[in-house]
Amino acid sequence: MSIRSCDLEPSGPFPPGVTVRYPRPSDHAVLQGALTDWWGGQGGEAGAQQRRLLLPRLFLQHFSETSLLVEATGTAHPEGEPTEGAALRAFLIGFLSQTDPETAYIHFVAVHPEEQRSGLGRALYQRFFDVARGHGRSRVRAITSPENRNSIAYHTHMGFRIEPGDRTEDGVGVWTDYDGPGLDRVSFVREL
Amino acid sequence: MSIRSCDLEPSGPFPPGVTVRYPRPSDHAVLQGALTDWWGGQGGEAGAQQRRLLLPRLFLQHFSETSLLVEATGTAHPEGEPTEGAALRAFLIGFLSQTDPETAYIHFVAVHPEEQRSGLGRALYQRFFDVARGHGRSRVRAITSPENRNSIAYHTHMGFRIEPGDRTEDGVGVWTDYDGPGLDRVSFVREL
Repeated sequence: MSIRSCDLEPSGPFPPGVTVRYPRPSDHAVLQGALTDWWGGQGGEAGAQQRRLLLPRLFLQHFSETSLLVEATGTAHPEGEPTEGAALRAFLIGFLSQTDPETAYIHFVAVHPEEQRSGLGRALYQRFFDVARGHGRSRVRAITSPENRNSIAYHTHMGFRIEPGDRTEDGVGVWTDYDGPGLDRVSFVREL
Repeated sequence: MSIRSCDLEPSGPFPPGVTVRYPRPSDHAVLQGALTDWWGGQGGEAGAQQRRLLLPRLFLQHFSETSLLVEATGTAHPEGEPTEGAALRAFLIGFLSQTDPETAYIHFVAVHPEEQRSGLGRALYQRFFDVARGHGRSRVRAITSPENRNSIAYHTHMGFRIEPGDRTEDGVGVWTDYDGPGLDRVSFVREL
């Protein structure tokens, strides 16, 4: 039932100058900082708090090998030492569904604002697709907020299909209160 | 990698008068209501919002068979219909670690205020221990907030050991900022 580690090749789809590894619990504070700082204040302090609460430490403890962390090469920290925030360039948090043996799920993807056009996001998704395939998964799911038009465009660009919701907004299916009162979501699926 | 369903026997450790089943995504709104209403307003609206954000829909979609929902018998709803809030008595949300093959994790347990001494909580934990053993797990982990003294006493009573933290508060190990800024946690482990 557990996931075997496999070597992480920083080459492949990743641009040069970065190191790719699995996240560890000791990365939590740095990732929380990114959730605060990388969104240009979107949603104010409440929005930052909401993003931080989406990433409790458990994801780094229990879903590490389906998640990825990208650092600028040379700034990566030795085991157990806190990372300098400047080193972190992107991360992806994902897991394998334990209910649906066909599905892998991307919970969170974040790319440093300076890296938004660098191909890091695409490389993270592609690497996750490979990991999911390696575990026999045929489908990847993800969600986003309906107001996050960049994320909707990006997922579509990456081959995700938008699922119908309970209403349509600007041509996009939206599920009202999907994650709780006021937390509408757009749901994506991509066959592998 | 996925979890096979197994029949849920409502007997065994559960008190009479309740039905036990796996939660479904369609239960999400009712569970969110419980997270708002069952804590006696603890932490005000911010506290309720924080609890709700701990339970995004993904847990009901992807970790259903390591989770449990208890309803008053006779009030359980047919497949796909919303449950009357009155019917829900307790729930447990758990999963199998994908990083550590020995560990199962209890993310959230909630018991209706009127059922606090009924044995429902104990029955939920015991059932989860059985499920974890059935998947070859030898250890269960959980966390709570240091101010939640009832939860700390309860976990100790259920055989959990409190792990050392980075400080001690009233004799209890506490991890500062464990789940983010201001989110201190007490960490429990129980061998099976």
